[in-house]
Amino acid sequence: MNLTKKSFIKGQWQTTQGQAFSSHNPVSNEPITQFLSATEVDASGAVAGAKASFAAYKSLSGQQRALFLEQIALEIENLGDDLLNTANDETGLGLVRLTGERGRTCNQIRAFANMLKDGFWVRASIDTSDAQRTPPKPDLRRMLRPIGPVLVFPASNFPLAFGVLGGDTASALAAGNPVIIKAHPAHPATSELCMLAAERALKKCGIDSKTISMLQGSTLTLAQSLVVNEAIQAIGFTGSLTAGRSIMDLAATRAIPIPVYAEMGSTNPVFITPDALQARGNEIANGLAGSIAMGTGQFCTSPGVIVTLESDAFKSDLIAAINEANQGYLLHPSIASGLQSSINSLVNNAAVEVLAGGVLDNNSLKTPNSLLATSAQAFLNDDDLHSEAFGPVSLLVTCQNIEELLMVANAIHGNLTATIQCQDNDDLAKPLADILESHVGRLIVNGFPTGVEVCASQQHSGPYPACSSPATTSVGSDAISRFARFIAYQDLPQALLPLELQDDNSLQILRQVNNQYHRDAC
Amino acid sequence: MNLTKKSFIKGQWQTTQGQAFSSHNPVSNEPITQFLSATEVDASGAVAGAKASFAAYKSLSGQQRALFLEQIALEIENLGDDLLNTANDETGLGLVRLTGERGRTCNQIRAFANMLKDGFWVRASIDTSDAQRTPPKPDLRRMLRPIGPVLVFPASNFPLAFGVLGGDTASALAAGNPVIIKAHPAHPATSELCMLAAERALKKCGIDSKTISMLQGSTLTLAQSLVVNEAIQAIGFTGSLTAGRSIMDLAATRAIPIPVYAEMGSTNPVFITPDALQARGNEIANGLAGSIAMGTGQFCTSPGVIVTLESDAFKSDLIAAINEANQGYLLHPSIASGLQSSINSLVNNAAVEVLAGGVLDNNSLKTPNSLLATSAQAFLNDDDLHSEAFGPVSLLVTCQNIEELLMVANAIHGNLTATIQCQDNDDLAKPLADILESHVGRLIVNGFPTGVEVCASQQHSGPYPACSSPATTSVGSDAISRFARFIAYQDLPQALLPLELQDDNSLQILRQVNNQYHRDAC
Repeated sequence: MNLTKKSFIKGQWQTTQGQAFSSHNPVSNEPITQFLSATEVDASGAVAGAKASFAAYKSLSGQQRALFLEQIALEIENLGDDLLNTANDETGLGLVRLTGERGRTCNQIRAFANMLKDGFWVRASIDTSDAQRTPPKPDLRRMLRPIGPVLVFPASNFPLAFGVLGGDTASALAAGNPVIIKAHPAHPATSELCMLAAERALKKCGIDSKTISMLQGSTLTLAQSLVVNEAIQAIGFTGSLTAGRSIMDLAATRAIPIPVYAEMGSTNPVFITPDALQARGNEIANGLAGSIAMGTGQFCTSPGVIVTLESDAFKSDLIAAINEANQGYLLHPSIASGLQSSINSLVNNAAVEVLAGGVLDNNSLKTPNSLLATSAQAFLNDDDLHSEAFGPVSLLVTCQNIEELLMVANAIHGNLTATIQCQDNDDLAKPLADILESHVGRLIVNGFPTGVEVCASQQHSGPYPACSSPATTSVGSDAISRFARFIAYQDLPQALLPLELQDDNSLQILRQVNNQYHRDAC
Repeated sequence: MNLTKKSFIKGQWQTTQGQAFSSHNPVSNEPITQFLSATEVDASGAVAGAKASFAAYKSLSGQQRALFLEQIALEIENLGDDLLNTANDETGLGLVRLTGERGRTCNQIRAFANMLKDGFWVRASIDTSDAQRTPPKPDLRRMLRPIGPVLVFPASNFPLAFGVLGGDTASALAAGNPVIIKAHPAHPATSELCMLAAERALKKCGIDSKTISMLQGSTLTLAQSLVVNEAIQAIGFTGSLTAGRSIMDLAATRAIPIPVYAEMGSTNPVFITPDALQARGNEIANGLAGSIAMGTGQFCTSPGVIVTLESDAFKSDLIAAINEANQGYLLHPSIASGLQSSINSLVNNAAVEVLAGGVLDNNSLKTPNSLLATSAQAFLNDDDLHSEAFGPVSLLVTCQNIEELLMVANAIHGNLTATIQCQDNDDLAKPLADILESHVGRLIVNGFPTGVEVCASQQHSGPYPACSSPATTSVGSDAISRFARFIAYQDLPQALLPLELQDDNSLQILRQVNNQYHRDAC
């Protein structure tokens, strides 16, 4: 397979002159291919191209954008094994997982296409005029409209589903916005292939190829120059708390601040009631170990904290399950060093005991699963124990009694998820649910947090530090609304209104008309 | 009428010990009553009270919260003429306007009550499980839930509709959140009366009186201590760009940043096409003068910029209309000094000509209406000419030709509204609409921007600097969603789910179930 090793800027594959960086094979633990970062000049060109393409792209109908998204999904599939093998070389995630992830990626793109065809997502609302009222009531109509160029920072851990054509890009394009993608430096070849698929879709659909740009790069200055570019209207980010917060802070200093939708750190605590521990302790231990080891622990929703009462049986079951669980590869040496640093900080804490793992291999990215333990009192008194360790490691927090368990529930930071393992008619289920929902985006009962279903009812978000914007979601249908804003039209003639708001409702979409929901004309 | 001159903190009227400030009668231009600011200790107590009341308040059903809101509206009405006279003393807005504003205030509270009874606003969504799928599909259900204590900064210019019980407070309470209100120092007695109405409603409905606190105050330290209080989950603000941006910036520095919904500066440009100018120039001039003078120009949506081609007839019509328009009182000496400073900055600009007014009376808050003029080229080259002058003043921007008019349309900053005055089948209407919608929250054709209808299709927002959060609205039904966030519930037993998400749909609300909208059980 021939790689251009270029960035896609203003509709052209362009050679860039920034700092060199290499992709890396986690299994062999060796570099693969050298790429050159895009420069600030490249970034500026990409954004200018996006800005210039906005008027034409936003004028496409929902149906036209739906066909474009479907073409993108098809072009991703048309990349065939090249895409899977390339992504596997760059991530070590394995072909089974990557095949599944490709399916999810294409499914979520097609789900947005279906939303565009359905049309409800624009939340069209009409209040008709009343000339007899004093004062006369105007005709007001409102819907979500595109916002302009969106900047996307893909994640390291999902090279496809949160990659160049992942959920952020798909939802921003679906909403009618040009997109500038700063590709993740851990998988530049995968990124190039995805951009190639997007370029083919742009051409086949006759859409201005400046609508999507993809910049290769590993430098902070590139990222920063994009964040402060005044034409950028919103930012989607998935990654670490440190990087996410720095983007939030920088965006807040802009002359015109913009929303940053950053999905960041989460420990996804799992609370096990005494009844569940007694009835299903062994089964829960095995489930937890599988969830912790999944994707080598490199899921935003990996269960990093387990909270129970004291139980030697459960502890030994969990140690055994963790030791037996599959060992995978970390994605990149930078993730290995971050994980080692997080584990060291825990292991060097006097209140923490190592039950399994705890030491990484310096010469390999193959990684043991780790289980550490601490007391509820230590957890309550030391914020450091709440930090995410990104990788296959979990902290068992043992409580003396129910009161302590509820105190721990009250003390957890903002998280993507919390899980309750409980029995039927378990007295502790409701108090735990009442407390935990205030801290999370998704509350799970008797499941495990890994595995994020893509559907209308998904909420992949949560109070800070899990996310910068807890009210929005980065997975599921509603991800699209992050990249749109409402506009109201007062007394506009029919011909000046978007199709979705015209009287005849030719698109047959579900609309709110004078506070009633229906698909009728008005 | 006896005033306590206290703040309402943790369910008690408390004497505070902060800096003294006086209410002011704009008509007599004399101080009325001295109040003492709340201190940072008072602020901390109010927030602690709100935090303590959250669990109980959020557990109320939508129906219960609706009854509470209706009781608040009734208690406002029960204040009778005392409220209107007090507000008139403190604002000089006149009893007719204030009677109308009271009606609007109660209507918007009742509109939120109706939304709570209807239940759709929570956007309940259900995706049922599929155990046969590989991997098994979980049951996921999602809805908007309350977020916790909300901080509200009411506006100077609407003592009731954006006051202590105005739209921000009403929408935050409707969504299920306790509220801390930092009353505007321009109308402390009006604020006390409103809090009294709220206290009566709290008691009659058996709701913890710590749920609403109202702090009197004029100090920056009080405001700042509230913004950084870690229990505050969101902020609603209406006021100047300077104050709003400082709140945004301070909130962004918090350990846990929170959303700031700030409605700030707007010049609400009105574009008049050549055809409209020729056909209806005189009528438009009269309409504009009325809109500029309305509320002594102290509306967020006051038309501060008028854009046309050169026309001596229109200019003299507009000067005459401005000179004949009603003269009212500015709300407060601080607003007068702000307006004088804004006008001075314009008048001292070599590119600006004074057509009417331009000088305020130092001894009176009664204020002439001002009309200034400049060229399109000057407007395009000088950002200072885009700044809002809060008061009855407008800047006529004269263009040499259509191209310049469209350039001005492209150059306007973020605004709450833009208006197009055009004729039927006017060639310029569509190009103007296409450009202007990118800059505003509401686009108006052949109307005037003042007068903000409260309904589902209203959007009172716009790109920065009009608002901090262009995707949300501070007027209309959707204002409620600012103060809620989505939570997803995965595989929860029925008894642990909120009523809105339970299978039987006992509330009969419109829900999205497996991507279909209906009111059926599932």
